Amino acid sequence: MANTKAYAATAPDSGLAPHGIDRRELRADDVAIEIDYCGVCHTDIHFAQNDWGITKYPLVPGHEIVGRVTAVGDQVKGYSVGDRVGVGCMVDSCRECEACKDGLEQYCLQGMTPTYNGEDRHDGSITFGGYSEKVVVSEHFVVSIPEKLEMAHAAPLLCAGITTYSPLRHYGVKPGHRVGVIGMGGLGHMGVKFARALGAEVTIFTRSESKVAEAKHQGAHHVIVSTDEQQMKDAAESFDFMLDTVPVQHDLNPYLNCLKYDGTHILVGLLEPVDPAVNAGALVGKRRVLAGSLIGGMPETQEMLDFCAEHDVRCDIEMLDMQHINEAYEKVKKGEVKYRYVIDMDSLKQAG
Amino acid sequence: MANTKAYAATAPDSGLAPHGIDRRELRADDVAIEIDYCGVCHTDIHFAQNDWGITKYPLVPGHEIVGRVTAVGDQVKGYSVGDRVGVGCMVDSCRECEACKDGLEQYCLQGMTPTYNGEDRHDGSITFGGYSEKVVVSEHFVVSIPEKLEMAHAAPLLCAGITTYSPLRHYGVKPGHRVGVIGMGGLGHMGVKFARALGAEVTIFTRSESKVAEAKHQGAHHVIVSTDEQQMKDAAESFDFMLDTVPVQHDLNPYLNCLKYDGTHILVGLLEPVDPAVNAGALVGKRRVLAGSLIGGMPETQEMLDFCAEHDVRCDIEMLDMQHINEAYEKVKKGEVKYRYVIDMDSLKQAG
Ligand SMILES: [Zn+2]
Ligand SMILES: [Zn+2]
Ligand SMILES: [Zn+2]
Ligand SMILES: [Zn+2]
Repeated sequence: MANTKAYAATAPDSGLAPHGIDRRELRADDVAIEIDYCGVCHTDIHFAQNDWGITKYPLVPGHEIVGRVTAVGDQVKGYSVGDRVGVGCMVDSCRECEACKDGLEQYCLQGMTPTYNGEDRHDGSITFGGYSEKVVVSEHFVVSIPEKLEMAHAAPLLCAGITTYSPLRHYGVKPGHRVGVIGMGGLGHMGVKFARALGAEVTIFTRSESKVAEAKHQGAHHVIVSTDEQQMKDAAESFDFMLDTVPVQHDLNPYLNCLKYDGTHILVGLLEPVDPAVNAGALVGKRRVLAGSLIGGMPETQEMLDFCAEHDVRCDIEMLDMQHINEAYEKVKKGEVKYRYVIDMDSLKQAG
Repeated sequence: MANTKAYAATAPDSGLAPHGIDRRELRADDVAIEIDYCGVCHTDIHFAQNDWGITKYPLVPGHEIVGRVTAVGDQVKGYSVGDRVGVGCMVDSCRECEACKDGLEQYCLQGMTPTYNGEDRHDGSITFGGYSEKVVVSEHFVVSIPEKLEMAHAAPLLCAGITTYSPLRHYGVKPGHRVGVIGMGGLGHMGVKFARALGAEVTIFTRSESKVAEAKHQGAHHVIVSTDEQQMKDAAESFDFMLDTVPVQHDLNPYLNCLKYDGTHILVGLLEPVDPAVNAGALVGKRRVLAGSLIGGMPETQEMLDFCAEHDVRCDIEMLDMQHINEAYEKVKKGEVKYRYVIDMDSLKQAG
């Protein structure tokens, strides 16, 4: 049966191990992709461990996929064999609702189909992600990787990249704006690069004095140590936007106070209740906005890749063999990895 | 000394009683106003009782002021003796900052000067509000009451009106939008009228089945009983905006779930920590927005009054003699008054 090598988790504590999966025959609008690289996203770990209680095992994670087209269905118009392509967090949606028609498939009213742990809209099978040799995806959910981008570095753009690019574009970040970026991981460092490339003056907020040099290296114009009361006081009411990439509960109030009137605090990492509580007075008194944003739609994902090519925006990565994924997860969990791990899928293909 | 009759609180538990105050000589840009009516806002009660710990006694409340011009300073250009005018929540601001230049004096970077319990920017005296015979205010903070509006009904527009009009305009509410209004008091019923006049389809959310008829009477197209799980479930993802006028802590999450993707929940009544906590996933997953808004700027306040005249928007009121203010406060505190109390200032002027 199994026609494709992959790595899967089979239980919350199983870790990942080799596991054969079956990729479907091409439908008329499908593209078959041989995967070259796949980024490692923190979400992969949450699903592998069933942190959110919704994992269906076996789970093949991975939604930062880049590779080359090896075959196309009868009606595929946009891609040909040999094209360099990418697949992100979604592989399908209803394609008919208001959101889908607006190119905001991530907000599909019927719910989009995630790249892994989702349910295929046609045959009900469970979707498997990019920790595998190949993948078959409808061309609507495939993007083109511009020639100028290196494939391995492009992989994390499909999740970390679009997650930070989309809200910055949606809220119209431009020259003259002051943007604060909270968090220095995969999302945060992409946020800094995009905000800079859009012409904004960028400040990284870090809790530790020891990370100031690293923050500067990431390209921030300024660094504020958020645990330093005086620095936070000096920053009061001076930012147009906060891009908050922190995935765990934290106090938003000190950051809200750093926003100007009409300023916007954008959550892209947090999915839990906002605790400590947001002070409503900080929103009302200055017409501030607390917003959320989820990845990005397909047209915007392509736009983001083209933007990266045009502005030389490049995700910093650390290469990884598939066989070392479990150690890599431990490092990510401990916060010991800078930026993004990217799996070189040759390591999987060449394994016995 | 005292040249003006007024009612003041002198301690948190004093209630309000007759108290003479001194209105200043006209400065070059000042307008002297004989007050005809003054609305009773819940904020007045909070200040009288020192609920927020910032009251300076004696306190003369009142920031929904309408009356007639009796004198103008040398350089006043916009008003003449006899003009029908209004004064709202602010009587001054720095007039030079970005916010002031944008006509958003309520967000003045130096802090606006409130109509009562504020500190005059020139002589440092404490400002006294509209529970008085007359008031002296710089013309920049005076608005013109259109002929078509009845004076008594216009009074609450200066706070309750502009507080609800401003965010609906700021966020561009228009025909085709579905707007939910939470709360049926002074703010809520104005929100319904404005949202309707702007062409939106309006739904009042009430916690009690017993208020459904009243909600319809207020002009809502629809009523949802928020304690009815099925009704709330049916309303999921169907609103563009929620105008939340509730001034006490409440759970926003059921309302957030009623917003479409890109929907906006606007807080205008709450100043405290948002408890229970907002679920960040409800914001991130649908790109929803939690926003706040504070009264409105001077140009927008004039625009709102003109809008009311043009669209026959009228605040429902209950008339009150100054002498009954303490009983009125008790009724407001118990939620026993519909809409807005308005003090007929003749009752003060004719008292011995
Ligand atoms: Zn991801
Ligand atoms: Zn859809
Ligand atoms: Zn008020
Ligand atoms: Zn100002």
